[in-house]
Amino acid sequence: MSSNPAHRVVFQPSGRQGSVAPGTSLLAAARQLGVDLDSICGGRQTCGKCKVRVEAGTFDKYGIASHPEHLTPAGPAEQAYVARHRDGFPPDTRLGCAACVQGDLLITVPPESQAHRQIIRKSATERPVALDPALRQVLVSVEPHRLGERLGDWERLQEALRREWGLELLRIDLPALRQLGPALAQGKGQVTVVIWSEAEVIEVRPGFQEGLYGLAVDVGSTTIAGHLCDLATGAILATEALMNPQVTFGEDLMSRVSYAMLHDDGLTKLHQAIIGALNKLAGAAAHAAGLRSRDIHELVLVGNTVMHHILLGLDPAPLGAAPFTLATHAPMDLKARDLGLKLHPGANLHLLALEAGHVGSDNVGVLIAEAPDLQDELTLVIDVGTNAEVLLGNREGVLSCSSPTGPAFEGAQIAHGQRAAPGAIERVRIDRASGEPRFRVIGREGWSDELEPGAIGATGICGSGIIEVVAELVLAGILRPDGRFDPEWQPRDGGEATHRVRWQGPRAEYLLATAEQTATGRPIVVTQDDVRNIQLAKGALYAGCKLLMRRRGVERVDRIVLAGAFGSYIDPLRAMVLGLIPDCDLEKVVAVGNAAGDGARIALLSTVRRAESARAARRVQYVETAVDPHFQEEFVGAMHIPHMRDPFPHLAALGMLPEPRAAAPRERRRERRAAVGPSTDER
Amino acid sequence: MSSNPAHRVVFQPSGRQGSVAPGTSLLAAARQLGVDLDSICGGRQTCGKCKVRVEAGTFDKYGIASHPEHLTPAGPAEQAYVARHRDGFPPDTRLGCAACVQGDLLITVPPESQAHRQIIRKSATERPVALDPALRQVLVSVEPHRLGERLGDWERLQEALRREWGLELLRIDLPALRQLGPALAQGKGQVTVVIWSEAEVIEVRPGFQEGLYGLAVDVGSTTIAGHLCDLATGAILATEALMNPQVTFGEDLMSRVSYAMLHDDGLTKLHQAIIGALNKLAGAAAHAAGLRSRDIHELVLVGNTVMHHILLGLDPAPLGAAPFTLATHAPMDLKARDLGLKLHPGANLHLLALEAGHVGSDNVGVLIAEAPDLQDELTLVIDVGTNAEVLLGNREGVLSCSSPTGPAFEGAQIAHGQRAAPGAIERVRIDRASGEPRFRVIGREGWSDELEPGAIGATGICGSGIIEVVAELVLAGILRPDGRFDPEWQPRDGGEATHRVRWQGPRAEYLLATAEQTATGRPIVVTQDDVRNIQLAKGALYAGCKLLMRRRGVERVDRIVLAGAFGSYIDPLRAMVLGLIPDCDLEKVVAVGNAAGDGARIALLSTVRRAESARAARRVQYVETAVDPHFQEEFVGAMHIPHMRDPFPHLAALGMLPEPRAAAPRERRRERRAAVGPSTDER
Repeated sequence: MSSNPAHRVVFQPSGRQGSVAPGTSLLAAARQLGVDLDSICGGRQTCGKCKVRVEAGTFDKYGIASHPEHLTPAGPAEQAYVARHRDGFPPDTRLGCAACVQGDLLITVPPESQAHRQIIRKSATERPVALDPALRQVLVSVEPHRLGERLGDWERLQEALRREWGLELLRIDLPALRQLGPALAQGKGQVTVVIWSEAEVIEVRPGFQEGLYGLAVDVGSTTIAGHLCDLATGAILATEALMNPQVTFGEDLMSRVSYAMLHDDGLTKLHQAIIGALNKLAGAAAHAAGLRSRDIHELVLVGNTVMHHILLGLDPAPLGAAPFTLATHAPMDLKARDLGLKLHPGANLHLLALEAGHVGSDNVGVLIAEAPDLQDELTLVIDVGTNAEVLLGNREGVLSCSSPTGPAFEGAQIAHGQRAAPGAIERVRIDRASGEPRFRVIGREGWSDELEPGAIGATGICGSGIIEVVAELVLAGILRPDGRFDPEWQPRDGGEATHRVRWQGPRAEYLLATAEQTATGRPIVVTQDDVRNIQLAKGALYAGCKLLMRRRGVERVDRIVLAGAFGSYIDPLRAMVLGLIPDCDLEKVVAVGNAAGDGARIALLSTVRRAESARAARRVQYVETAVDPHFQEEFVGAMHIPHMRDPFPHLAALGMLPEPRAAAPRERRRERRAAVGPSTDER
Repeated sequence: MSSNPAHRVVFQPSGRQGSVAPGTSLLAAARQLGVDLDSICGGRQTCGKCKVRVEAGTFDKYGIASHPEHLTPAGPAEQAYVARHRDGFPPDTRLGCAACVQGDLLITVPPESQAHRQIIRKSATERPVALDPALRQVLVSVEPHRLGERLGDWERLQEALRREWGLELLRIDLPALRQLGPALAQGKGQVTVVIWSEAEVIEVRPGFQEGLYGLAVDVGSTTIAGHLCDLATGAILATEALMNPQVTFGEDLMSRVSYAMLHDDGLTKLHQAIIGALNKLAGAAAHAAGLRSRDIHELVLVGNTVMHHILLGLDPAPLGAAPFTLATHAPMDLKARDLGLKLHPGANLHLLALEAGHVGSDNVGVLIAEAPDLQDELTLVIDVGTNAEVLLGNREGVLSCSSPTGPAFEGAQIAHGQRAAPGAIERVRIDRASGEPRFRVIGREGWSDELEPGAIGATGICGSGIIEVVAELVLAGILRPDGRFDPEWQPRDGGEATHRVRWQGPRAEYLLATAEQTATGRPIVVTQDDVRNIQLAKGALYAGCKLLMRRRGVERVDRIVLAGAFGSYIDPLRAMVLGLIPDCDLEKVVAVGNAAGDGARIALLSTVRRAESARAARRVQYVETAVDPHFQEEFVGAMHIPHMRDPFPHLAALGMLPEPRAAAPRERRRERRAAVGPSTDER
């Protein structure tokens, strides 16, 4: 042992270092030096969270030699722990709480031992999230109660939490207080405590226990999607989605608001439907991860403002008309049980902040997941859904608005539309010469033309499929830019046009899947009404994008992020062909899936980001589309495929656009009428 | 108007005075000068709480002349208010928020206009309580929401509460948030808000609303008693009591603890029984006051530790054996709805602090109601009940203990015992010469000998009646000091002994009410077992008193306060004759009724006293009777009537004690055996 009364310890990867007294444990040394080293058991050689690697025979950049023998040897408890956990314990590994310093050392804290380690997530903007959930789990030893001593169990637990973990001013939830006495008896004074937000004890269990879980949910008008996460690792244990059962009361937001207003028990029914669905989702996600709903300690939720209000039992009527008043825009924490949510009895429900009007916390989720406010490039983030939200901005500021696209992009209001689930057509390609389609079905490997027809079993078309098929019909010239089937279209390969494009009087439909290719034995077609509904939806979305661009005073954006909670990612090229998004360098258009859900998950895993999101929500400048005259104007003008008023130079450069047909002045007028609805001569 | 830019205003009775700018309202002037002047509507001439009297033509002690004309005249709003409230509005009265200062004035704030006025209560120690409940009610005007403005209803309400009332950092309970939007719409932006503990909005109603109510409840082992109070005035609007339905699971605390331990659903059943009873009590009290349960905004509750734990669903098993560990001793606030209590949806449940062992918050209630810790005289406070608590102390310190008296004092374990309710015999006198009784029945005017036998309708004997009848039997010589009926007793007036004292073999009973005097047509008697049960109960109580006196090192106390939640006050003389309390100057013995319930009411009406009670509970020095060898010794020695070991000089001086009979040595031994239970030769 060195004659020096203190030894130098360097921790990697933080580089933090300093002198510690001989005999100090590595866990204590880490705490002294501000090194992020995890622990649940507080130094009892039980939890293994403080596992570190001892670098042997190396010199750090300060020239300090490291010697594993500069640590006290493993005692029986550590040896027993290692024997139980051989796989995770290479020979150079020690328990930080057991190994005590006897000389200079170089220590590496592996990622899994960092309490606030970064979890990398897939995103358009790869931004690491440092794990920092609202919940923590600690093991404490509570002094026994002695006759004549006047401290209750809770008072002695508080004393132990203060002494061992420096936790003060805690309160205890009643269900946890009910657990406390029996847990102390069973654990012989040792209990594992779950603490929420450094403020409230929500669980007490006997002895050493591990496992903290949270659920992040995006409540969409049509789809509810959730990720069940391990709060100790940030890992996604299960992802589940289900249809929002409120669709039986109305497909879009305004019809739900109307239902709540027109029926005495309307709000109650809508509220109970969503609570029931969340309980179902939680149960399914927990089951998929081998857990129970009551293991879920926190639920973080995003949704549009109408969903948010109905979920809380707040009257959504004011959201149905100008000035679109919210009950509150603030983030909220409440006991999940207060809403009838059957999770852990002490589980917290965190609702992210709302922006304004119909732009809810789902868009705040998108905001923290995609962070346009941290970009140099002017970024357009489009969250496609039954109610779509658009963000436009960069470091200099962000604008937001909401567009009532309707549920067509989620497969509703489409003749053979369906939710993204096994059997749904999610990808479509149409041969430019023959007009023959091929497609991919969720749950099947390969394209339809690579499979036996009977092995395909298509059941319908989901959102990404409907976007692709309409875009492909345009590219093949089967649909005209005004969205009508072209009566003059013929296959260039000399085939029979009526095989795929079937006319019934003035109306046509496109045969996407033949009867042999479907599970039902009936063909799947794309009708003129389907195309009209997609036109309306994309028109609304495009109008929202244009409105924000007009407010920002720009004609072009640098980047586009396409998000959506429904099934497969949207194909950027076809979204642009359809005129769903404005023109942009295709290399700068990315699809990211459920960004709102990703935002909810970030808020679940990081209270720092959770707090940031509330501030970011306030900074976004909201534009109310519902009363903006420009929005209606843009909407009407945005119905054509591809958009006629705004040239799409990037798309044109790709040679993807069909030749615009020279329309006669008279025909052009008819096209304009047709753009706002089917013209009478079509009926 | 004076040329002086400021006018002098003196407020009585506080004497606070100062200069205010011309045009300042009297309400604003009161606030500037720190004068306690009430208001709900915040100066809208609506609530009338700020009514003041303008002293005319008088000079205050500073020589300042007062002139009613130094106030602006009443405008249309004030005139309309006065027209609607003529009775409460003498001519010299003005609304403080309407009348503005135009010259020097002398103003009297009447008691009903003082927000923190003192409410005087009947008690052994007349201590005024300043009204200071946890709830307040304020009227606010919320700015309308304008299109494009991004504050929700709650954010605009917070802004209004800050602006008009200086209230900040509030949270809002979900049921109140649900009320907010509709209330703002109905009240055209004006809403009345109920705020709990200056921290949480728990109610929002449209326009001006008045009425804040609270319930103070003492949960005894046998009886549950509650006062419904108007929190704006401190008045008791209703007092209700009912039997604790847990008695079906065991009459005393230990049998309830056993029931909870021995049955899987034992705790659940006991818990549900008490919650159901509290809901019933709240409903009955609200009904009696012309209100509904949901009008009760707060419930303050006291009870012994076992009742406290069962009420919260906490396992009471640790209270069944040494070291008698509490789950917590701290005062608690929780949402009443979390326990299934059907009060106002945002109602708070406040549980006062516990002391230790079996001495619960009921004794803390007694402590703040009777305040022995503020007395110079050494005071013994005895709270008689199924579990009795004793306090002994003065300014120099207070001791407490609990005595398992059993339910005899509450009419249980007594052959014809019953709860104090109409029909119960509550007072008894027995003629010393004839042995003939007369009695009073609850709900009947006059004594039994003043009424027609058929008009009496006695149904049983309540606690105070059983204490009196046993004491009177002793005074008449019918019972011997060892508690046995004297076989040699004969009426001194020559009447027939067997008319009232009926022997069946070695056992006797005393005929208190004849068949004609009862509602059932069957006589009401006092049996030898009844006397034995009273002896056991009073022995336990007396032993507790003696134990504390021994700890304190005193032979005598200066004062005795007799409290009890059951029906009529206990008669001090007869309590002393019975040996229920130690000897004391009878003029220094007072009976105060339900002091624990009074304490609960004080805590309901005053948050200052509520906070004090938690500190006082910690200061009391607790003595555990259950494991104290002296207690058992005292208990056995305390069974005789009157007590044989400790002379009762004050009682002897009154000539109230029967002549002690010179007992033979052999008989004395038998007496001692009899003291711990019926001797075998009695069977």
